[in-house]
Amino acid sequence: MTPSDTPEQSEFRQDALSGRWVVLAPERAKRPLGLSNVKPHVRVNVERAVCPFCPGSEAETPPEVYAAPGPASTPWQVRVFPNKFPAVRPIAPDTHGLTQRFDMRLLPGFGVHEVVIEGRAHETEPTALPDDVYTRVLIAYRERIKTLGADRRLDYVSVFKNVGAEAGASMAHLHSQLIASPFVPNDVREELAGAEREHKFSGWCAYCRMLVGTGGRKPPRFVAESSGFLVICPFAPRFAYEMWVLPKEHASHYETITDSQALDLARLLKRVLTALDAAAGMPAFNYFLHTAPLRTPPMPHYHWHLEITPRTARAAGYEFGTGVFINTVMPEKAAAELRAAVPAGL
Amino acid sequence: MTPSDTPEQSEFRQDALSGRWVVLAPERAKRPLGLSNVKPHVRVNVERAVCPFCPGSEAETPPEVYAAPGPASTPWQVRVFPNKFPAVRPIAPDTHGLTQRFDMRLLPGFGVHEVVIEGRAHETEPTALPDDVYTRVLIAYRERIKTLGADRRLDYVSVFKNVGAEAGASMAHLHSQLIASPFVPNDVREELAGAEREHKFSGWCAYCRMLVGTGGRKPPRFVAESSGFLVICPFAPRFAYEMWVLPKEHASHYETITDSQALDLARLLKRVLTALDAAAGMPAFNYFLHTAPLRTPPMPHYHWHLEITPRTARAAGYEFGTGVFINTVMPEKAAAELRAAVPAGL
Repeated sequence: MTPSDTPEQSEFRQDALSGRWVVLAPERAKRPLGLSNVKPHVRVNVERAVCPFCPGSEAETPPEVYAAPGPASTPWQVRVFPNKFPAVRPIAPDTHGLTQRFDMRLLPGFGVHEVVIEGRAHETEPTALPDDVYTRVLIAYRERIKTLGADRRLDYVSVFKNVGAEAGASMAHLHSQLIASPFVPNDVREELAGAEREHKFSGWCAYCRMLVGTGGRKPPRFVAESSGFLVICPFAPRFAYEMWVLPKEHASHYETITDSQALDLARLLKRVLTALDAAAGMPAFNYFLHTAPLRTPPMPHYHWHLEITPRTARAAGYEFGTGVFINTVMPEKAAAELRAAVPAGL
Repeated sequence: MTPSDTPEQSEFRQDALSGRWVVLAPERAKRPLGLSNVKPHVRVNVERAVCPFCPGSEAETPPEVYAAPGPASTPWQVRVFPNKFPAVRPIAPDTHGLTQRFDMRLLPGFGVHEVVIEGRAHETEPTALPDDVYTRVLIAYRERIKTLGADRRLDYVSVFKNVGAEAGASMAHLHSQLIASPFVPNDVREELAGAEREHKFSGWCAYCRMLVGTGGRKPPRFVAESSGFLVICPFAPRFAYEMWVLPKEHASHYETITDSQALDLARLLKRVLTALDAAAGMPAFNYFLHTAPLRTPPMPHYHWHLEITPRTARAAGYEFGTGVFINTVMPEKAAAELRAAVPAGL
């Protein structure tokens, strides 16, 4: 039996690296939604009377820790500053340290929570972001990871983006966030362990293998590519139309991305996000970076990537109770639809 | 430093059994929500013109696989039938089997997905369910786990409940669901492994230890108790006002619950769900059962429990990207508020 033989039959699939099972249940897409049910996949942006992320409101936000000037006399095009309502915050170094007592392990919430403002214009759609601005955003990620990596109390920087209220965004003006933590987050730790196990067993980077097609063909569930990057739907996606973006050349650390690779990636992201809107009807979505922990040497087994997770369904009791997600769109079908909707590259 | 010393300071806490880190960020509760933002915590029920779960609509649903008659001449008080839009379904036994190829592990989606109708009356609030009906629901869980356990292709039965649209419910009439799968779900597998490791290390059941207070006091983060069960807020909750319900006597398998224990549990659940509504403002919520896999012997290290997870915040890019949840209410504070709101027992 191969994945595509029986498109309407449910399948359980396991992601080889995280060990995570998912349920692929195309039949369940036929389920009627209740009369008053909010369609969970429609993107709704949260607008405020005055946008504190627009130029002129700089004093409303904490002072910036990074800024990328635009061309000519533009003071900034991308700004990074501490989140005003942080999940974590820097604290005095001497209060840092693990407390372990019976089944309790706790760390004071030392960390860094920052917001990356993507452009001066009040854009709400990533696909509308000019190439040079999007490139500077991707460079800002790199620079913040490098800078934060110098603090030895921090082990990991998670970069993520929420688009639409359903995806957790509380501000419309395009922005990303990053949270630096004194531990490697749960899912990344599992992925790293799985990738290392796979590499020991086969000698391959499991991600490099995902990018290889057989007989000169594109890799399975191919969506799009640029000169340096490939986009696929993963084998065991948690979300309908989920996509992974990976560099073609093996690289474990996002920080190694060059300026020209960032431009290439920005253009590709705009193409696949355009395809996502067309194929899945403008869903709210998140994307997030999975990269190697801070201050680690280059890893032959790990391969940084960006995961794009449309919020096409609501996670409910089964998902939160088991960690197993139900996805009603087979990734083979999602990839075909996305592929057909990707605009031509430059 | 102890958990309660610094209530407004963020903390990272790790659940000792699952290894899952969470961020406890009380300050983040002050974050303003956008003007047009839907309050994610308000419970909204999805009503239909004609409820297919009410008496008289039995023909609209698949034939029942289990029914508990009510007193006197009531034909049923609790009904269980296959989900009309299943995530998984029974298939011919000869097509069952694991396919493994490179990084792909897949199983045909063999399984069972059932709906448990909780009472004849069109109730939408679990706290309004009469004790005898709620008891029959809890007994129905037991009976279905026992019956499904006879099928050797199935490894696990997940029982869960979605209340409110935000928690994934698409029908208002009170009901639970169960999904039986040919594997042990991700989160349960991790919890089992953690509990076994803990037991080997300390000789204790880690859950039994959670139920013990020091110096004759109640256990930490105590919420409520009945003669047979205890409710606590866990040390590292993913959700604000999250509660765990555990039997006082060690038991690894939910199937061992007696009828009188089911009544005791039903009454306690109604009390703590009443407290949840009062303390957290009628949130949408899920609850789900964590119990030992099917056909396993009694386990000294595992302890079945019910996790109640209010949907007080939307999981966003950080949560889905890292598995790390941000929770703005410290469990010590949540437990105190819940405790104060629990109505007296019978």
